Amino acid sequence: MTTPRIHIVTLGVDDLPRARRFYEALGWHASSTSNENICFLKGGAAVLALYGRAALAEDAQCEDRPSGFAAVTLARNAASKDEVDTWYSAALQAGARAIKPPQEVFWGGYSGYIADPDGHLWEFAFNPFLVFDEHGNLALPD
Amino acid sequence: MTTPRIHIVTLGVDDLPRARRFYEALGWHASSTSNENICFLKGGAAVLALYGRAALAEDAQCEDRPSGFAAVTLARNAASKDEVDTWYSAALQAGARAIKPPQEVFWGGYSGYIADPDGHLWEFAFNPFLVFDEHGNLALPD
Repeated sequence: MTTPRIHIVTLGVDDLPRARRFYEALGWHASSTSNENICFLKGGAAVLALYGRAALAEDAQCEDRPSGFAAVTLARNAASKDEVDTWYSAALQAGARAIKPPQEVFWGGYSGYIADPDGHLWEFAFNPFLVFDEHGNLALPD
Repeated sequence: MTTPRIHIVTLGVDDLPRARRFYEALGWHASSTSNENICFLKGGAAVLALYGRAALAEDAQCEDRPSGFAAVTLARNAASKDEVDTWYSAALQAGARAIKPPQEVFWGGYSGYIADPDGHLWEFAFNPFLVFDEHGNLALPD
């Protein structure tokens, strides 16, 4: 069996141009394959896609009920506490909602959360116990 | 500014051993850094973490309300329609809930959706317009 992986994370959004502007302001690059209905953002290996929330619900044949707590968070890991603070401030400046200001956390790291314009949660974290590989991804032990 | 990326996708789950068994049955490998409170699954470059739903809500300082439609989907891209069918069947056998049986979709691909034991949506898709790079990730044009 080939190793499974996350190729794409798709976020359902209410206003695609607004969502795209937000992520571009944070340094994401929209692929030329993007169009007025979907936006493919290139970062690391996994693609971040933005798609209309109603269209996403329809595609998954799910009822588009209000989401409450989605129980999904996306994390970007930093090389230092300062970097966490920088990313957090930049996100607020780009229109994110403050959720949890960066702070020391019980597991020995430093982390903060923001919500993007559609309420999707991002954690910016410095984890002193994790290292990065040469591609900038997390190098977890086997 | 360094390029942003998704380092970790964390799914809030109600029963961590059940969720871990489900993903391991599908070929994900749990890192030795996993413990009784969190599981780090290694696939491609992005890490898939499983964490208690209530603990995740608390970590993000969010109220743990029922989620309705989370408006987040994770996708694994296949090299063929057959592979989509295989993954879909394997997921159901491992305890997933059938959401959308694999089928031809309007954008010219072939895709199905399942929900994991906690309701998180996965799309298995064959997209004839996308190619993979040498690492097995999607190679999106700039």
